[in-house]
Amino acid sequence: MPIIRVEMFKGRSVDQKRALVKELTDAFVSAAGGTPESVHVVITDVDKEDWGSGGQLCSDKFPD
Amino acid sequence: MPIIRVEMFKGRSVDQKRALVKELTDAFVSAAGGTPESVHVVITDVDKEDWGSGGQLCSDKFPD
Amino acid sequence: MPIIRVEMFKGRSVDQKRALVKELTDAFVSAAGGTPESVHVVITDVDKEDWGSGGQLCSDKFPD
Amino acid sequence: MPIIRVEMFKGRSVDQKRALVKELTDAFVSAAGGTPESVHVVITDVDKEDWGSGGQLCSDKFPD
Amino acid sequence: MPIIRVEMFKGRSVDQKRALVKELTDAFVSAAGGTPESVHVVITDVDKEDWGSGGQLCSDKFPD
Amino acid sequence: MPIIRVEMFKGRSVDQKRALVKELTDAFVSAAGGTPESVHVVITDVDKEDWGSGGQLCSDKFPD
Repeated sequence: MPIIRVEMFKGRSVDQKRALVKELTDAFVSAAGGTPESVHVVITDVDKEDWGSGGQLCSDKFPD
Repeated sequence: MPIIRVEMFKGRSVDQKRALVKELTDAFVSAAGGTPESVHVVITDVDKEDWGSGGQLCSDKFPD
Repeated sequence: MPIIRVEMFKGRSVDQKRALVKELTDAFVSAAGGTPESVHVVITDVDKEDWGSGGQLCSDKFPD
Repeated sequence: MPIIRVEMFKGRSVDQKRALVKELTDAFVSAAGGTPESVHVVITDVDKEDWGSGGQLCSDKFPD
Repeated sequence: MPIIRVEMFKGRSVDQKRALVKELTDAFVSAAGGTPESVHVVITDVDKEDWGSGGQLCSDKFPD
Repeated sequence: MPIIRVEMFKGRSVDQKRALVKELTDAFVSAAGGTPESVHVVITDVDKEDWGSGGQLCSDKFPD
């Protein structure tokens, strides 16, 4: 019943998300046990203007 | 001051959200006490391509 | 696959948590559809000294 | 390595978010120590129709 | 700057958590790119009496 | 109605948490508007063995 949440910068493709769900699920089962069927993964895409680091917006710090 | 968060697949109507807020708030007060006025509910709509279950994207597993 | 999270002041009994899980699950299904089997509820007990409201710790504002 | 998350009604400007990241980071360091460089802030804009208070949708309770 | 959160039943050892952090971080970088240095992982151990599934407490449903 | 959550290493005193709630609330109001009365702050103390950075547990990376 584990739940894994990922917050990351917006911009990954569906293929990357598909791989991410697969690999995080496998990683969880390998390290902590349980079955893949029970693992949930919820991905949140975050805009750079909604993420701050070191007191600065990431949209200012890491412009595209 | 309780906070209830709901993550669910995108696609519910405003009427369903209105009912959800009302019924979750009543359920909380009935089971745990307190007053409805103090209860917050925050709803997050999640795309099926941002939700994984059993190592697969829900957009692959449960196509519309 | 909905996930419901509850943050509330520490101190509810297991019986209250049992009722809370049951009633929140029923409330979700009644308002938003789906099946009870797919609903997860995760409860977080929060100490009053870890909750602030109006700029004050709740342990100061609402002493036991 | 502290992580600060903010959920607030949608509608703040980028300038307000820039100020928010700066001021929350400074507030954290002033009150709890550490360095600004290590502080992360993640902002979530929430629609009024996704926020309930007192059993009502905020879009009903506080129309624009 | 990605943040990965894991909620799972209480009871894993520090060795399992060490492996979990390593494997989730590698999984993220492999699937989504970026560097391991930027990945944060936050683990939350959840009591079975704080987790509900299908309307029942997991402490009732899956007793130890 | 904004909600601010803070995840930080365990070990701050109640006085530091009191200051943190006060200063984060003031910072929010100064940068984003609204009233202090409406701001909630929820603090989560995280063990170093539940926090990973760069693929390592913080309890290994930053021993006390």
